[in-house]
Amino acid sequence: MLEPMRHFLDKTTIILASASPRRKEILQNLGLTFVVKPSTVDENLEKSKYVGRPFDYTVDTAALKADDVFKTVIKDHESDNLVVIGCDTIVTHGGTIYEKPKDVGDAARILNILSGNSHIVYSGVKLIYKEKGGVKREETFYEATEVEFAELSEEVINGYIATGEPMDKAGGYGIQGRGGSLVRGIKGDYFNVMGFPAHTFSLKLTECLKLMNNSTQTS
Amino acid sequence: MLEPMRHFLDKTTIILASASPRRKEILQNLGLTFVVKPSTVDENLEKSKYVGRPFDYTVDTAALKADDVFKTVIKDHESDNLVVIGCDTIVTHGGTIYEKPKDVGDAARILNILSGNSHIVYSGVKLIYKEKGGVKREETFYEATEVEFAELSEEVINGYIATGEPMDKAGGYGIQGRGGSLVRGIKGDYFNVMGFPAHTFSLKLTECLKLMNNSTQTS
Repeated sequence: MLEPMRHFLDKTTIILASASPRRKEILQNLGLTFVVKPSTVDENLEKSKYVGRPFDYTVDTAALKADDVFKTVIKDHESDNLVVIGCDTIVTHGGTIYEKPKDVGDAARILNILSGNSHIVYSGVKLIYKEKGGVKREETFYEATEVEFAELSEEVINGYIATGEPMDKAGGYGIQGRGGSLVRGIKGDYFNVMGFPAHTFSLKLTECLKLMNNSTQTS
Repeated sequence: MLEPMRHFLDKTTIILASASPRRKEILQNLGLTFVVKPSTVDENLEKSKYVGRPFDYTVDTAALKADDVFKTVIKDHESDNLVVIGCDTIVTHGGTIYEKPKDVGDAARILNILSGNSHIVYSGVKLIYKEKGGVKREETFYEATEVEFAELSEEVINGYIATGEPMDKAGGYGIQGRGGSLVRGIKGDYFNVMGFPAHTFSLKLTECLKLMNNSTQTS
């Protein structure tokens, strides 16, 4: 989707404000060249303020990360051709937000809740970029994907936790790894479940690149 | 999902009758140890005989591959603990079956048809294994996933084809690569679109392993 933007991308510095190896992999799959610069900000938003709108929690957390990294890198990047990407992913079920499990017991508790049920994965994204002429612009969006889990026995949950895979992942599973076999099916963008909404991001980045370059290119 | 089967898996020889690097990757992600042994049989089933039941086309092609490889390996494997896996994946839209594009022009034609539309990906699988005591058993199944493509401009299609990615893939795209950005969303198993139905396969393999080992284990 981004191939027609190649001539703009070649002169753009893209900075991913995330340490997630999954996000890095997704951006690489899109054919992008970028720099990984994780934010050091505390991700400490009060979940109780986001009841009924968990998507805003992801967007606001993504903004914390992107703002933090933009502030740092802007000192070294005089060029207009800069895009900073922040992203945050959560799992929600029954009005509760699930992030990374605290420990093995927490992972078992979350996986038991997800077992045999559908949940929603939200990824919020913030893009910060400088338009031609140096005007700073910001763009936020989120993507939702429904994930249907199979009915999981105690043995399957414990066996999965023993692989170590759940511990650094929102909701306690990785769909791109062994966790993929726990998922009966999804509705929406798979990459969003993995941690980054590849399709919508590609559309938004295309818009950004046009604005940055004052282009009216139609694709 | 397969972790509780570890003690059975450790004494089982699994043979994947496919040269697809995507299938290999999916089986590795499931934590399986296996041997890749592509079949050499002609995949030449007459599509016109499968009108209205494209899923049977994938199952029959999967069977061609699995049967061919089972025939060869059974000479070297006296053990009962053998499972041969054949798989075939197609894209269907408007009653037509799309496999790998013949050339660049064919890839453009197929991607133009898929653009802005939903299509179905079917993967058919055949498992051949030997039950305890040497009785040969066979199991076939298929999985369907709906894929919704974004509206793609001529420039996006040509740019995507120029990456070389479409040429060895059913329907002319790879969802796990740059093609992922062309997909608005899916309904069903993502890995099925990539070329192998990870979840259903895990359930079926669990059943096979129990039969092979005369086990009544409940998970």
